[in-house]
Amino acid sequence: MRQKLSVITLGVADLARSIAFYRDGLKWRTTYKDGEGIAWFPMGGVVFALYPRAALAEDALVSPVGSGFTGITLAHNTKSEAEVDAVMAEAAALGAKIVKPAQKVFWGGYSGYFADPDGYLWEVAYNSNSVFDEQDNIKNL
Amino acid sequence: MRQKLSVITLGVADLARSIAFYRDGLKWRTTYKDGEGIAWFPMGGVVFALYPRAALAEDALVSPVGSGFTGITLAHNTKSEAEVDAVMAEAAALGAKIVKPAQKVFWGGYSGYFADPDGYLWEVAYNSNSVFDEQDNIKNL
Repeated sequence: MRQKLSVITLGVADLARSIAFYRDGLKWRTTYKDGEGIAWFPMGGVVFALYPRAALAEDALVSPVGSGFTGITLAHNTKSEAEVDAVMAEAAALGAKIVKPAQKVFWGGYSGYFADPDGYLWEVAYNSNSVFDEQDNIKNL
Repeated sequence: MRQKLSVITLGVADLARSIAFYRDGLKWRTTYKDGEGIAWFPMGGVVFALYPRAALAEDALVSPVGSGFTGITLAHNTKSEAEVDAVMAEAAALGAKIVKPAQKVFWGGYSGYFADPDGYLWEVAYNSNSVFDEQDNIKNL
């Protein structure tokens, strides 16, 4: 198995609501056209997808029933503490729940968490040790 | 918020078990050294991380309690149907549960799902329409 994550898909309760959050709110580019069943967002190295939750479970042949902590977090790393604050404020203004206000954290960085419309957790983090390449990827992990 | 997923972290029940699966089994490169609390795997564009589940929930200030379908799937896209079969066989040989045997699927591709040691779902998929760039990223989504 090649060392590659091609696509991450979030199963969402309301596709239109999630597209409104990510495309219209955060202004992320997507190839989505009205009426399509899935929305793809190129993220630079990985594709982020939104798909109805029940259909995603059906595709995997698993029960759609699940609740509580998913066990998975997504992180968006910034170039400054101020950018963390700005992103958290942007998400909050779009109605995202602030799960953990941005704060200094034990590993020396500055980080907060918000939840998207389905409750999926996004960490917004600044690590002064992170080095980014020209594609905006962290290159020293 | 920049259109960027920097890190995806899986909260795992047994870090050593998960490292054995991904590093020793799948032969993925990691900067992990024995005794560290988190394992980072560079995936080309996004960093894949393994971290104890309870600590991950604590970091987000959420309850670690959760069960059932996470709502999230990870996909590994291949260059051929034969590669799907090979990856599924490799995962199965490492003890991964085959959740959906590889098969022709409604969107015209060929895909299967396996579960990692914590039950996180990996889809292994071939889409003849996918175009990959020189970094192995899907460039037409």
